[in-house]
Amino acid sequence: MRHLLTLENLDRAAINRLLDRAERFRSEGAPRHLLAGRTVLTLFFEPSTRTRTSFVLAAKRLGADNVNFDLSRSSASKGESLLDTLHTLEAMHLDALVVRHNENGMPAYLAEHANTGVAVINAGDGTHAHPTQGLLDALTIRQRRPDFANLRVVICGDIRHSRVARSDVRALATLGVRDLRLCAPRAMLPESLADFPGCERTEDFDAALAGADVVIMLRIQKERMLDAQFPDPADYHAHYGLTAGRLALAAGDCQVLHPGPINRGIEIAAEVADGPQSRILDQVANGVVVRMAVLAELLAKPA
Amino acid sequence: MRHLLTLENLDRAAINRLLDRAERFRSEGAPRHLLAGRTVLTLFFEPSTRTRTSFVLAAKRLGADNVNFDLSRSSASKGESLLDTLHTLEAMHLDALVVRHNENGMPAYLAEHANTGVAVINAGDGTHAHPTQGLLDALTIRQRRPDFANLRVVICGDIRHSRVARSDVRALATLGVRDLRLCAPRAMLPESLADFPGCERTEDFDAALAGADVVIMLRIQKERMLDAQFPDPADYHAHYGLTAGRLALAAGDCQVLHPGPINRGIEIAAEVADGPQSRILDQVANGVVVRMAVLAELLAKPA
Amino acid sequence: MRHLLTLENLDRAAINRLLDRAERFRSEGAPRHLLAGRTVLTLFFEPSTRTRTSFVLAAKRLGADNVNFDLSRSSASKGESLLDTLHTLEAMHLDALVVRHNENGMPAYLAEHANTGVAVINAGDGTHAHPTQGLLDALTIRQRRPDFANLRVVICGDIRHSRVARSDVRALATLGVRDLRLCAPRAMLPESLADFPGCERTEDFDAALAGADVVIMLRIQKERMLDAQFPDPADYHAHYGLTAGRLALAAGDCQVLHPGPINRGIEIAAEVADGPQSRILDQVANGVVVRMAVLAELLAKPA
Repeated sequence: MRHLLTLENLDRAAINRLLDRAERFRSEGAPRHLLAGRTVLTLFFEPSTRTRTSFVLAAKRLGADNVNFDLSRSSASKGESLLDTLHTLEAMHLDALVVRHNENGMPAYLAEHANTGVAVINAGDGTHAHPTQGLLDALTIRQRRPDFANLRVVICGDIRHSRVARSDVRALATLGVRDLRLCAPRAMLPESLADFPGCERTEDFDAALAGADVVIMLRIQKERMLDAQFPDPADYHAHYGLTAGRLALAAGDCQVLHPGPINRGIEIAAEVADGPQSRILDQVANGVVVRMAVLAELLAKPA
Repeated sequence: MRHLLTLENLDRAAINRLLDRAERFRSEGAPRHLLAGRTVLTLFFEPSTRTRTSFVLAAKRLGADNVNFDLSRSSASKGESLLDTLHTLEAMHLDALVVRHNENGMPAYLAEHANTGVAVINAGDGTHAHPTQGLLDALTIRQRRPDFANLRVVICGDIRHSRVARSDVRALATLGVRDLRLCAPRAMLPESLADFPGCERTEDFDAALAGADVVIMLRIQKERMLDAQFPDPADYHAHYGLTAGRLALAAGDCQVLHPGPINRGIEIAAEVADGPQSRILDQVANGVVVRMAVLAELLAKPA
Repeated sequence: MRHLLTLENLDRAAINRLLDRAERFRSEGAPRHLLAGRTVLTLFFEPSTRTRTSFVLAAKRLGADNVNFDLSRSSASKGESLLDTLHTLEAMHLDALVVRHNENGMPAYLAEHANTGVAVINAGDGTHAHPTQGLLDALTIRQRRPDFANLRVVICGDIRHSRVARSDVRALATLGVRDLRLCAPRAMLPESLADFPGCERTEDFDAALAGADVVIMLRIQKERMLDAQFPDPADYHAHYGLTAGRLALAAGDCQVLHPGPINRGIEIAAEVADGPQSRILDQVANGVVVRMAVLAELLAKPA
């Protein structure tokens, strides 16, 4: 494992190894000197609170140096190409480049051109992939239900445009989930996405929820939609909002996940987001240790 | 002491304990590992050079990890509520949140909703309070004159809109000052502020200065005033500017304080700001060690 | 050596001592605690990727605390003077101030007013000087050709407006270069610049390249030129672009340098920038260790 660009090429053992490592960081604390002297550069072309801060904390807690590449001050304003920027940063002795970009495939493009010794970590690219989110969601679910083969999982929201959904589907399939329901209004259902037996598409949220063990709600991303595409919030909530009443259709111990930031009263009711079945803040906490595990896996020198 | 929101609930012993600790950091240097592994997040909704940099240095010099929450890049642009941001950051295992906000009471609101184990430090909220400024001003005065009960103190400027003045008055009253003169043009005098016997209001700066041991000049805050409220600078200087001539009305060893940044030639003459009685740069230096003391008090694990 | 403002006052021994130290950092790695407890503040009034990141990494790799002074959030927006900002930062116990400014002489102005114990490092001021660039270019050349007295060096581009050229000329002259050709279209040739026997000016790039051992290409700085001054890119490339064909006029082992970011296809052809004679990425790598050497020289306490 040299880069982390998608979850497509990680098998079940590889994913579980990362999740086990994350769990150890969570229970035993961070080995503060594991990455001492290593440099992690965060390069975000889209706004982010959680993901960037989570990676920065992960790097610092393992003792790595972190530098944030501030685009507003960068040579991007001088017309430098992205590859020249990459090679310049590499020449400063970079160990990992954490990159978020609004274009699909940009992290893979950088990885393809990166020098040996530089790990590229995809922190979300367009509608393509968000592999650390997939991992942290898997970790969150596994903490309560490690029996993935028995789980009924629902993903609901703008699946078509969601890199989170793509990485979640991949992680869940690899970990053995056999009953996965992708639920969205027609315009937000993907044309194709990780087809496997037991993966269904539906527009009927109530039906999808029946007996669910996990429901992953997606954020309505106003900032990614044209106005014409954006649904009426009240109408969306009526059909696809996760309310307490609707959650009662699922299994009694159904876990509720959401990648955040949440739109209260649109895709999720406040009482559910703040309720006992919500794992939303656990996801955030798991995000830091999962990113520590990824950095440790990619950067730590063999003993 | 779990948070530091105002100085209202700190008694004289508590304030002196913080100031003593700050003095020890100043004379003995920082114990670089006191807060190793702790995370201090700075969250500023208003521009600041001094206060933010001062807190960042205080955190780093005690070995804490610091992450600056960059609002322009944050999920605030995605419409996330402040409380959801708080809880998200907490879930990443935050130890202290240093917050500046233009609305009175916002740090207290965050503290009220913060998890156990997260200390909220008010770095200035609206016109309400700026407790670390109150502490560093008290420390600065105490270094030369620990006999607060004997001091005649003048605060001059836009007291009505000044959180610095509010925190200074509170600190001085708690430390035993019995002769305090609040001086401003009528529009800038507060209607009520920490009334205690010996606290007077006046519009006459020359009279207020007679025999003063300490004079705290406030910044004319152009950025907080409507144009119509803002006085003519020359006129303001004529009546309320601290010139060398005016300073001669005070005691010979009168200390001159100003929270900065100063408006030279408006509220304070350059010759006074740069003169031998000025403690302005001492205040800045004291600011770092006072913030170290506050972080140490709130975050250090008992031995 | 208290500040680093230009290379004018460094003799050959002083430059070589810095370059030797940089080489040791490169080969032996950074002594991570050399500057522990020291504070390096980066203060950039112009955009920069390479230089700022390079200084930040240099500071961190020697164990110094780094704080970036973010101008958009600073008291500059409150009208504070630059000197008051300087003295405020100094009072927070600053050890080095790394400053880039668009006005010639601003770092020297700050150095003149800085307290004892604060080192000012010029990270580029206007068209005046960029001393660490001069040092890193000298180091890069020296790695392959330490015999400066035998070298034929060409500098080509907008020499008139280039602080890089000024610092390069100074470094090369001090290190003993006796054959230096400054090549540019007439409007970009300096009226006077480090005249010494063997320093020639020419508008003929092909003639200048004949037998050259080193060619330093300068960036066409669109952001510094009026539209009327800016040459037609194709025309500029035809006369002053370094192509493979043109490079063949130089010595077979001629080193190609460029301070970056490069404008591919304008002052340098992609095949040359990426070719075997290019030292561009070596320059970047050398930039970090040169800045470490400068920080170590200015800040490290005597043993």
